[in-house]
Amino acid sequence: MIESVKVIGVGRVGSAVSARLAERGIESGEDADVLLLCVPDAAISDTVRWLSPDTAQWVAHPSGATPLSALDPHARRFGLHPLQSFTRARGPEQLDGAYAAVTAETDEAREVGFELARLLGLEPFSLAERDRALYHAGAAIASNYLVTLHRAAADIFGEVGAPVEALRPLMQGVIDSGFELTGPIARGDWATVDRHLHAIRERRPALEPLYRVLAEATTA
Amino acid sequence: MIESVKVIGVGRVGSAVSARLAERGIESGEDADVLLLCVPDAAISDTVRWLSPDTAQWVAHPSGATPLSALDPHARRFGLHPLQSFTRARGPEQLDGAYAAVTAETDEAREVGFELARLLGLEPFSLAERDRALYHAGAAIASNYLVTLHRAAADIFGEVGAPVEALRPLMQGVIDSGFELTGPIARGDWATVDRHLHAIRERRPALEPLYRVLAEATTA
Repeated sequence: MIESVKVIGVGRVGSAVSARLAERGIESGEDADVLLLCVPDAAISDTVRWLSPDTAQWVAHPSGATPLSALDPHARRFGLHPLQSFTRARGPEQLDGAYAAVTAETDEAREVGFELARLLGLEPFSLAERDRALYHAGAAIASNYLVTLHRAAADIFGEVGAPVEALRPLMQGVIDSGFELTGPIARGDWATVDRHLHAIRERRPALEPLYRVLAEATTA
Repeated sequence: MIESVKVIGVGRVGSAVSARLAERGIESGEDADVLLLCVPDAAISDTVRWLSPDTAQWVAHPSGATPLSALDPHARRFGLHPLQSFTRARGPEQLDGAYAAVTAETDEAREVGFELARLLGLEPFSLAERDRALYHAGAAIASNYLVTLHRAAADIFGEVGAPVEALRPLMQGVIDSGFELTGPIARGDWATVDRHLHAIRERRPALEPLYRVLAEATTA
């Protein structure tokens, strides 16, 4: 049972995780049961080098993009990637309801990783190391590129004088409807799709490849 | 002041709108103040042909893609496009907090359109007829293509054995964070972007153009 966790790092993830552990009454300290390295991906290996190689502590990182081997030479290790887009503007409530990908090499490591995820308010699932890059690409498509869609639509709304704030309830509605496809492609209304392309080509040509590829992917 | 509205059509939009008007105690009837044609886009012109051309009624349609001229020869007309992705699984609450694009040719028509929007629980804004196609393309990018991102990510999550349900709190988190960009592109971490592309090319090649165009648009 995890009784203490030392979080290193005060970035987006580290801040939310530390605040949640404090809420839960979990202690910190150098000899904590788990050492969680919430540092930039490139700094994980450097940080781990300062640890005693024969420590009994569990060492973990929350990076979706970084392999477990970044924690070499420590054997008692796991990865715990909280599947959330963290902002500094919010607190530990960002963890509520989110999932976490746990990558582990032993049953014991997986158990500790799952326990830490649940302690944080996350719903854990197992992720194989070999699937990490593809999984992380999927997460980027769902989260980072959602920001890109919003930016593209906001650019267009600015051009036609429509309020950018109108996009948020629209996008929220898509989530609330369970991602049901509506609109011209759902209706097979290609004349409207052509009118979209014509208008984009005329007034926002930089967005044409984006619109085109998304229309094709939606049709597929 | 609008005291009665006749809604024609019982599709996604017509059902939600009728339920909302009933909640508000607005009467219906053939000689209502406003006739709202919630029929398929292609049927708007056919429906309007059955009306007396000298009616004093206001005639409106809720289609984002259809020009006002589809209501010819009626002059007392406007367009009211609720900016929402409607599902039959939900009711009039889908209108709450959403915006509506009102297209009108006279100040009087605009006033009636804005009044009807507010009666429905929508926040109105003016949309010029010449901007309609571009505006509607923007709405499609924000809503329909959000479904496409979810599908692409769900496809990848299926491949790596991650739960598809994990995508919803992630995408919700992006909205809750105010569409703040996080992830590899925000950090300038091109090595991770390359690993994503390599993994997609190997295991989900059909998604490569989508990932590539979105990465480019995010970088721009």
